[in-house]
Amino acid sequence: MPIDPNAVGAAIAGGSFTWDRDRIILYHLGLGAGNPQTDANELAYTYEKNLKVLPSWGVIPAFGAMGNLGSLPGMQFNPALLLHGEQDLEIHRAIPVAATVNTSGKVAGIYDKGKAALVVLEMTSKDEAGNPLFTNRFSLFIRGEGGWGGESGPKPGNEKPERDPDLVVESRTLPQQALLYRLSGDKNPLHADPEFSKLGGFDVPILHGLCSYGVVCKAVVDNLLGGDTGKVARYQARFAGVVFPGETIVTAMWKEGNTILIDAKVKERGLNVISNAAITTR
Amino acid sequence: MPIDPNAVGAAIAGGSFTWDRDRIILYHLGLGAGNPQTDANELAYTYEKNLKVLPSWGVIPAFGAMGNLGSLPGMQFNPALLLHGEQDLEIHRAIPVAATVNTSGKVAGIYDKGKAALVVLEMTSKDEAGNPLFTNRFSLFIRGEGGWGGESGPKPGNEKPERDPDLVVESRTLPQQALLYRLSGDKNPLHADPEFSKLGGFDVPILHGLCSYGVVCKAVVDNLLGGDTGKVARYQARFAGVVFPGETIVTAMWKEGNTILIDAKVKERGLNVISNAAITTR
Repeated sequence: MPIDPNAVGAAIAGGSFTWDRDRIILYHLGLGAGNPQTDANELAYTYEKNLKVLPSWGVIPAFGAMGNLGSLPGMQFNPALLLHGEQDLEIHRAIPVAATVNTSGKVAGIYDKGKAALVVLEMTSKDEAGNPLFTNRFSLFIRGEGGWGGESGPKPGNEKPERDPDLVVESRTLPQQALLYRLSGDKNPLHADPEFSKLGGFDVPILHGLCSYGVVCKAVVDNLLGGDTGKVARYQARFAGVVFPGETIVTAMWKEGNTILIDAKVKERGLNVISNAAITTR
Repeated sequence: MPIDPNAVGAAIAGGSFTWDRDRIILYHLGLGAGNPQTDANELAYTYEKNLKVLPSWGVIPAFGAMGNLGSLPGMQFNPALLLHGEQDLEIHRAIPVAATVNTSGKVAGIYDKGKAALVVLEMTSKDEAGNPLFTNRFSLFIRGEGGWGGESGPKPGNEKPERDPDLVVESRTLPQQALLYRLSGDKNPLHADPEFSKLGGFDVPILHGLCSYGVVCKAVVDNLLGGDTGKVARYQARFAGVVFPGETIVTAMWKEGNTILIDAKVKERGLNVISNAAITTR
């Protein structure tokens, strides 16, 4: 079997990653930050003086681990059939504006979705002193696998409440947003090259799911957490649909104790983009 | 005298500079390239496949030389009184998408403008094989100097014709354009920090003159040279006024043999931005 459910627990190397203020600023600009006409605090994301780090940055240094998955025994599959299904990021301590981290982890779960396998990678990134900064859980849908009669895994949580949201925020993306975001590391041509995106079923290149993830994180931090990036302890999200660069992401938020439940749609097409999402505050 | 006219001929080191495709793409995005809604060829500036290099990139690897000027004997002045007056860039051979260059040069001229000194730096950047790629002439106005009774130097050339332009092109800048452009190297806070720009007499940060220079270069290459970046042999321009990020640059062009005369204004305020400008083609 190309995906072997007994591969649970296998170790994955995530490598070393170094960043500086310019990388952080580039990441924030890649999320659409820096427009002084929309919010006077944009400079805190895009200028080295008093620079803050959006917690969703934590996905970037660990991202390379996904590319190492296929080299594990029991993990042979067609990478074109992989979909990034969910992301779960825990922030253990304040993310510095410059650091080197080492990322390592394991296959934390393999579930049988019938016509797909769901593989969960759990990767922790530690600074040079060995302090864990953040842990990522990447949930990857591998289509064309599954069907071995295994467990189907946990159901998505973080259902949005029935009541009206406490706040709804619109974030317009730039037409060139994906071209800018990809400089932070995810060079998949699906997000740049129309010839390639057509092969994937999209007439034009789509925005990175983790870009939308960052846009939504920023909307919550700026509008419900007073811009305090340090308040985010955990950020879980399910990728429900795609955004085309230039579209507007509409983020609905509900406060429930120290949890902010989140649901995001594309304004222009009404399509759900991020669902079953929550930011847990500290 | 803080500026000594006898310093003409003094050597200036410009240092080493390495770039790759990502740096080129970041530079082009910093000029506003990559909007697929305005021009299908934008991808050639913003995606690594078949990437081309706008000739105005040539100013970036040599830019650091200006910072070394103050360390020369006979070149003591207040850097806050320096204005970048003109830029003259000669392209000797096709600029590669990735390279390391070494830049060196000299003080090519010092002129007496009465209440200012005009200092011309001439810097040539050579690749690792020793081939010259491009030569920059930075003309720097140093206010509060001058008045020693010296020559006033050459008059600005490249007067625009009396007749209507052959083509007029509008290039809208992004509100965050300066924040993005500065990642290519010019970190002067005048272009990011409102507190600093107010000290310089501007309520909000201004766009880099060399960003406008690149925007205008792109407008000419895309609209009169069929997108062929290799056709530019020389690009001279005078910085006549400032652009605020988010404004639209309107570039007027006149073809005269192998010279394209150029004049650019800010649409919103009618102010001249780049004058006495020309691109010489090969």
